[in-house]
Amino acid sequence: MDNSTSPIVGQSKIRWLINKTSEDWINLAISNPMEILLDHAHCERKAAGVALQLMFRYVSEPGLSEVLSPLAREELEHFERVLSILNARGRHLQKLASPPYGSILAKNICKDEPIRMLDSFLVAGLIEARSHERMTLLSIHSPDLELRDLYADLLKSEARHFGVYWKLADERFDRNILISRLEALARVESDALVEMHKEPRMHS
Amino acid sequence: MDNSTSPIVGQSKIRWLINKTSEDWINLAISNPMEILLDHAHCERKAAGVALQLMFRYVSEPGLSEVLSPLAREELEHFERVLSILNARGRHLQKLASPPYGSILAKNICKDEPIRMLDSFLVAGLIEARSHERMTLLSIHSPDLELRDLYADLLKSEARHFGVYWKLADERFDRNILISRLEALARVESDALVEMHKEPRMHS
Repeated sequence: MDNSTSPIVGQSKIRWLINKTSEDWINLAISNPMEILLDHAHCERKAAGVALQLMFRYVSEPGLSEVLSPLAREELEHFERVLSILNARGRHLQKLASPPYGSILAKNICKDEPIRMLDSFLVAGLIEARSHERMTLLSIHSPDLELRDLYADLLKSEARHFGVYWKLADERFDRNILISRLEALARVESDALVEMHKEPRMHS
Repeated sequence: MDNSTSPIVGQSKIRWLINKTSEDWINLAISNPMEILLDHAHCERKAAGVALQLMFRYVSEPGLSEVLSPLAREELEHFERVLSILNARGRHLQKLASPPYGSILAKNICKDEPIRMLDSFLVAGLIEARSHERMTLLSIHSPDLELRDLYADLLKSEARHFGVYWKLADERFDRNILISRLEALARVESDALVEMHKEPRMHS
């Protein structure tokens, strides 16, 4: 696992990602670059949607919109960048069936506040951390130079994004509760990827 | 009415706004600058939400995300700018009861496609046009220099925004249908403001 996906807490390092991505996923992804690119566009669009949804849900939470609005703008910038590569390659955005990953994570968010807020931050952070890990792999293994450059550029800010979600959680919640919820949700996240989804997706 | 809120179509000019904003509204707004500022922050946030919602609903529509994503980013930039003035004046974002304006317009959007898409563009354009008209008034009449500058800056891009919605509609729909729907919705928009909402809001 890339060390940069682990915030340092006191003397120890908190792990976002329990399992590394498999070689099978890398092979599936680099063999289907256009489908991964299309799915990646959707991921950036959805990430902006998640940030905006949290801004809407917790509209009166001081200091929340101040960091989530710039994050949403950055996700939209990434979305536009991926979309322009798709367009340049003769493709438009089109619907794509989602892998079960996102809905498995969403189902594990606690329904009751204030833990719902904590879990929402952590799930958003976990998805950012996994995206960062996989973009790192694509930036190394993709045989397509333009795509390698794209992923290398984007992953710099993706690393900042899970830091944003970590900070939002850490500023508002007891550290022990935070770590216990992160451990539980990180387990769900890694388990959701154990059986690889057959269609090539960022979160297959 | 400010001429810049009227796209020129052939030899004639299409009117977005049927009625001018009253002096009563100007007086209400400049007497309650903080409440208007707070409501304005919400308007920018919601405008970004509308653009994103249309991107989600019409995800496979070629050329739509390409213009709505940068528009959403610009709305978020405006939101952050208003929020930073609020913060500098010791205020946080907080919930504010909405005036009936938005829901009256939403109720008048046709439920069936493809007219639902056309109406959605036109309603978004009408709200942008009204915001532009009112920001113009605030940039002239506000006694607060910082706020005058804020509104003067923001309204430049607001003018572009209703142009974006006009173009999205004009590229996809028959001109006669477009003009007939715009006339009907513009009537709803102006009527919604005839009786002034008692609380100071951008769309009181």
